[in-house]
Amino acid sequence: MGRFPEAISFAPGAPHPDTLPDADLQRYTDRYLAHLRERGADPERARRTLFEYGPSRGLVGDVVGEALGRDHGIACAPEDLVITVGAQEAMLLVLRALFASPGQVLAVANPCFVGITGAARLLDLDVVPVDETDQGVDLDGLARACRAARQAGRSVRALYVAPDFSNPGGGRMSLDCRHRLLELAEREDFLVLEDNAYGFTAGAGTELPPLKALDTRRRVVHIGTFAKVAFPGARVGYVVADQRVATGGGGTRPLAAELATLKTMVTVNTSPLAQAVIAGMLLEHGGSLVELSRRKAELYQRNLTALTEALDEQLGAAGAPPGITWNRPEGGFFVRVQLPVRADAHLLEVSAAKYGVLWTPMDQFYLDGAGDTQIRLSCSYLDRAGIEEGVRRLAAFLTKEIRS
Amino acid sequence: MGRFPEAISFAPGAPHPDTLPDADLQRYTDRYLAHLRERGADPERARRTLFEYGPSRGLVGDVVGEALGRDHGIACAPEDLVITVGAQEAMLLVLRALFASPGQVLAVANPCFVGITGAARLLDLDVVPVDETDQGVDLDGLARACRAARQAGRSVRALYVAPDFSNPGGGRMSLDCRHRLLELAEREDFLVLEDNAYGFTAGAGTELPPLKALDTRRRVVHIGTFAKVAFPGARVGYVVADQRVATGGGGTRPLAAELATLKTMVTVNTSPLAQAVIAGMLLEHGGSLVELSRRKAELYQRNLTALTEALDEQLGAAGAPPGITWNRPEGGFFVRVQLPVRADAHLLEVSAAKYGVLWTPMDQFYLDGAGDTQIRLSCSYLDRAGIEEGVRRLAAFLTKEIRS
Repeated sequence: MGRFPEAISFAPGAPHPDTLPDADLQRYTDRYLAHLRERGADPERARRTLFEYGPSRGLVGDVVGEALGRDHGIACAPEDLVITVGAQEAMLLVLRALFASPGQVLAVANPCFVGITGAARLLDLDVVPVDETDQGVDLDGLARACRAARQAGRSVRALYVAPDFSNPGGGRMSLDCRHRLLELAEREDFLVLEDNAYGFTAGAGTELPPLKALDTRRRVVHIGTFAKVAFPGARVGYVVADQRVATGGGGTRPLAAELATLKTMVTVNTSPLAQAVIAGMLLEHGGSLVELSRRKAELYQRNLTALTEALDEQLGAAGAPPGITWNRPEGGFFVRVQLPVRADAHLLEVSAAKYGVLWTPMDQFYLDGAGDTQIRLSCSYLDRAGIEEGVRRLAAFLTKEIRS
Repeated sequence: MGRFPEAISFAPGAPHPDTLPDADLQRYTDRYLAHLRERGADPERARRTLFEYGPSRGLVGDVVGEALGRDHGIACAPEDLVITVGAQEAMLLVLRALFASPGQVLAVANPCFVGITGAARLLDLDVVPVDETDQGVDLDGLARACRAARQAGRSVRALYVAPDFSNPGGGRMSLDCRHRLLELAEREDFLVLEDNAYGFTAGAGTELPPLKALDTRRRVVHIGTFAKVAFPGARVGYVVADQRVATGGGGTRPLAAELATLKTMVTVNTSPLAQAVIAGMLLEHGGSLVELSRRKAELYQRNLTALTEALDEQLGAAGAPPGITWNRPEGGFFVRVQLPVRADAHLLEVSAAKYGVLWTPMDQFYLDGAGDTQIRLSCSYLDRAGIEEGVRRLAAFLTKEIRS
């Protein structure tokens, strides 16, 4: 994007500029401080909490936990919740806490968010891909992966999946698949790391329960972020972890407590200032993630519709080059387009320089070398006019360059 | 502290409440935005940078880098600097980037800050202790550790040290020791991880140059934090890394670039909001860390003097129990007291419950089991009256309990 400032970019998965706060920050921190005073805190002590270190597990777990219960049916005791520096830190901490021996492998929905594979690489964990379809992970493939690991004297310790509009796949796990995944997790004894970054973009009334809301056997570790629901610059995320993990001494301790201990070795604690801003925004919206994100969700739904309609119009009509298809996600930021040619850095260079349109090659999201003829289009950072013009440019590019 | 709210606590190494900001946050972010506009940024684009993701290496490197040059003589190109979530994240990233094989060990000044040993434990690194005296690390011991590692087919990759008032030791490395350490690093081919959290507390005119300012051969990675110079709740630190590291493909790349890549797997980026607050505070003080922290440094110097004077008066006089000694740090937050008995959890319990005074057992800071008869007293969180009363209680406790 820096090299081609005039190009229309379908690359960034960043929130739309219109969704960023326009109020001053003081309003939100003041709202959070009022909340602390309502709960009996001394005003001067409350004010100081914004500036001091604070507990590793975070300050605003009460506000976040109530919202998760209210909005998503996730029953979440305060001691099960840890506030993190975005979802990314939550992923790193969870992997470090859960993976105790080299024989344990991480299964990931494939294609996969690079944040989880990056965290696994930082910790030198072995990762096994499991295909993801538009209806969820391939459960037969996952069961095979568990068996294969067992036969090799290893085990699948956890599966990473984003059931509600994955990045980059765009798929959404069906309710049936959710139930069957939880049964498989129980049968094969693995945990599910549920990433809920994009769940809020579901159309009103079409939401499905998160895995964690269906989880009666503590199989699911639920990871979320305020990057899209509120704004990325706060770097505030969270993890619900009501499991127990083994300690060195042969006992067990709560996973959330272990995550908080590990967090002292990574970031000590999440900026209380940033936590207070986020909690203040939540409290201003009745303590509800859904209320906080309603307008944003509508914007992304409109953009997603605009993107698939533009693709239909420009690339679905007679005369368009053959062999081009795309999926139709019901939410999230991303559409995947299948090309009849390799979507590599060279093709992207031509697209940017000659046609003024940018996109993301998909091969980087695959662990098995697949996806090298796919591109990811993000609709989150653009407006309708930009989306339509961008797809016109994309169609011109594909029509001329693929045919020639 | 939670269990004994009435006790006077010498435990927390947290900044004094009087040093926390009293202005509203908006003032600081506005100051930073003005800086961006002065440098030619579009006002609306500048405002958005507070709320969006931003680059992994950070937003405010220009402001921080100029301050390091101005105040500490650390020449620091923008591309050598990474802004981190406190010094803790910097330590984790640096260790992960530098330690590429199991044969590499980390030497640490002993006793040692638990943040670095924690980060090493998270990454499963081997750590070797090197004694620290009041004049710096034992260079002969360090040379022996290098030789011993080599003879075992291993190598000391780096030494962690806080030359200016270590936590918990309180020592300050002499200028001669600084020069000789850098020579040894060159001769034995290791890097020095310099932690400068407490350097600002040196009395005016008594400052020594940081190792990084003396480093002509890129042997020093310099780590700092704004937790004490500004306030902890921002969680903003930094690392100056002008080295190069090997890449998988047989080439090299800048260490700072590698740290930024690793940071995408840990926290993605440091909260731009928090960075802007810190940069605004720096800019309000002429872009100088020294100006920003002058009043704080004076407060800690006064407290340190009050603490050693109270110890002299209460425990240095005739009639005090024998075998109790303490060091006299010239700066920092901490005084170490040597007892003639084990300073364990039981002794602390008695001290808290019967005498109303809390302190920190030192054995947790030692890697070799030493220090179990030492306690750490922090003077940072108290006022003169509290320090004096706390030492009176400590003296009563030691006089009665040690004699009985």
